[in-house]
Amino acid sequence: MKLDSLYSELTLKTNAKLALIVLDGLGDIARKETNYLTPLEAAHTPNLDGLSKESAQGRMIPVAPGITPGSGPGHLALFGYDPIEFQVGRGVIEALGLGVELKPGDVCARANFATLDAKGIVRDRRAGRIPTETCEKLCAMLAAKVKKIGDTQVIIKAGKEHRFVVVFRGKGLEGPLTDADPNREGFAIPTVKPRDAKNAKQKKMAKLIAEFYKKALPIIAKEKPANGFLMRGIAHQPQIPLFEERYKLKPAAIAVYPMYKGLSQLVGMVKIEGPQTIKEQFERYLTDYDKYDFFFIHYKYTDKAGEDGNFEAKKKAIEDFDAALPLFLQKRPDVLAITGDHSTPCALKGHSWHPQPVLLHSAVSGSDKLDRFTETGANVGSLGVFEAKFLMRLMQANAKAFDKFGA
Amino acid sequence: MKLDSLYSELTLKTNAKLALIVLDGLGDIARKETNYLTPLEAAHTPNLDGLSKESAQGRMIPVAPGITPGSGPGHLALFGYDPIEFQVGRGVIEALGLGVELKPGDVCARANFATLDAKGIVRDRRAGRIPTETCEKLCAMLAAKVKKIGDTQVIIKAGKEHRFVVVFRGKGLEGPLTDADPNREGFAIPTVKPRDAKNAKQKKMAKLIAEFYKKALPIIAKEKPANGFLMRGIAHQPQIPLFEERYKLKPAAIAVYPMYKGLSQLVGMVKIEGPQTIKEQFERYLTDYDKYDFFFIHYKYTDKAGEDGNFEAKKKAIEDFDAALPLFLQKRPDVLAITGDHSTPCALKGHSWHPQPVLLHSAVSGSDKLDRFTETGANVGSLGVFEAKFLMRLMQANAKAFDKFGA
Repeated sequence: MKLDSLYSELTLKTNAKLALIVLDGLGDIARKETNYLTPLEAAHTPNLDGLSKESAQGRMIPVAPGITPGSGPGHLALFGYDPIEFQVGRGVIEALGLGVELKPGDVCARANFATLDAKGIVRDRRAGRIPTETCEKLCAMLAAKVKKIGDTQVIIKAGKEHRFVVVFRGKGLEGPLTDADPNREGFAIPTVKPRDAKNAKQKKMAKLIAEFYKKALPIIAKEKPANGFLMRGIAHQPQIPLFEERYKLKPAAIAVYPMYKGLSQLVGMVKIEGPQTIKEQFERYLTDYDKYDFFFIHYKYTDKAGEDGNFEAKKKAIEDFDAALPLFLQKRPDVLAITGDHSTPCALKGHSWHPQPVLLHSAVSGSDKLDRFTETGANVGSLGVFEAKFLMRLMQANAKAFDKFGA
Repeated sequence: MKLDSLYSELTLKTNAKLALIVLDGLGDIARKETNYLTPLEAAHTPNLDGLSKESAQGRMIPVAPGITPGSGPGHLALFGYDPIEFQVGRGVIEALGLGVELKPGDVCARANFATLDAKGIVRDRRAGRIPTETCEKLCAMLAAKVKKIGDTQVIIKAGKEHRFVVVFRGKGLEGPLTDADPNREGFAIPTVKPRDAKNAKQKKMAKLIAEFYKKALPIIAKEKPANGFLMRGIAHQPQIPLFEERYKLKPAAIAVYPMYKGLSQLVGMVKIEGPQTIKEQFERYLTDYDKYDFFFIHYKYTDKAGEDGNFEAKKKAIEDFDAALPLFLQKRPDVLAITGDHSTPCALKGHSWHPQPVLLHSAVSGSDKLDRFTETGANVGSLGVFEAKFLMRLMQANAKAFDKFGA
């Protein structure tokens, strides 16, 4: 019997309110250079400290030991989905990040503008990293002339520098396909092929990509330096069991950045538009408290500071969050989890595999008698070190939303 | 390769004595209301403290994160069986709890006396919770007239209030079947069906249930208010690999309550009758020390106090246990584990998902340098937080009962 099936069988509908607050990239590592403190440990966090005494703590492995997740797997795990079982193509993640509202069945591709020589050989895979404005201009040229291929709608959206995405919306399309990218310079753009040679939908999609190239390449053939493009990660939006059905909870996402709105939409959360700051996000939570059972609240600035390697900025982002927290706590949910989707250690200037700390608070979470919420404290918490995909299950348990297993 | 097969291949016969002492529902949570102490932390336990310094500690997830187990899965995990793989039907657990000695192949059903109207519609699923004496009288009436159906023996045993069990003992019978219970009032009793439509033994069993209803209903048709009955959890005793073969250990169970004697019999332990108190249980352990290799000793009162939400009583139950412990330690086994089958937090008045603490003591367990055996101490123990089904494997290892894996 699959564990997810057992969880589903035991899941009950209750009136509990649950909230998952994600400080993106929260986790960090202690080093001599920062006096053996992490940003969370160095920060002044009176409000998190106040919660800590009445909470359980632990650390979460985002995917599997040693694996550094992108935002996609990081969040899918937090939403309770096995991030290895439910993989989301890079094209889909890229499209979500650019704010494209995807529909089930859409096939997405990450694309790069590139420089080709007269024989069609790739000479620069990034076309000298053209400015974003040039990318936007080229995308507009393509979008103006390639709106459809047969019955399939084509959506082109510019990203930063040489990057853009192409979304194919039609019937009977599927990925994944091989890349239209030689992955190095000096070679021609390869023709894409179905990953599964017997899959008719993939075959149809491969033909569509070939036709797209035939139509699109001539449009920019005289541009310099970006006279061609490459496509990678061509895949459709996977079928993911809906959050509401899986947990019997009506979910809302209060996020600021498109990527996180998009990821929450993948599992069917209601996307709440408007709030631009954590204070506004918390205010909206208070307003909408009665409308939903589950709130996903996403805070980006911890990750940004980590990516910049800026310890002080990460500490400050945590302190800003902590200062806003009393607003949220005006309506304390029955179950509250505060964590990250992964660690983004300043020393690494990027995502990492280090288990992120998690705080779990409810009337029955028990107290780990810890005065603060920190990585070091979380190491000795009663939740232990566990896979992030189980956090939702612990939140359900704390909401008394599971029937007993066996007599 | 299945992990269990690997363990079996590596398992050696030794002369070691192992003891598993289960304080039922031992685990608890710390809360402000109890000065941030659990009953185990609040209790005066000089003898457990004495063991602790020479032991390893950890916490065990009874089944999977967030899942609250009944006594069945809780104990199967402690006996080293995956409680999701080896599921025991509710009818079987109920029969064991009432002291019915089951044989392999027996099909058991939980039953309720109920009130039916003239058209056979269920009007009260519990017949107004009739007194236990009425239930016993009704069961005696049924048992007197329905002893056999064809070649199949029928055993009827009264429980508390409206509850009873029916056991079918014959050849070629199997569950599980659907319930003969509409699960709400205002509907007729549904006809039971095989869960697997192609299973001939289940089909035969479904016919037997129908015949049982045909014979039994008229016997109580004129009774008030219990003029009918419902049957649920109709399943056979599953095939579970025998403990003795699995671990090369001759096991004995020294339990007081029928449920735990029954659960130990499911895996083939020798059931020791007689002892009524923990002192008597320990005395019997000393007497029988040479007869068996493995002793399962079950102490119920921690769970009872937890179910009553009585912190002081749970603390007292732990202190009573601790006071008796020196008797047991007159013959210290080579490997000793002291734990619960799950937590029963007083604040929850019931079983829970919180990992229970475990103490593991042997000449090679190592010391976690902890002065006491507590939930908070167990959080930082060398065993970490692990699934309860692995405790037996750790006990085997401490008994040096595993060969090295690979060269």
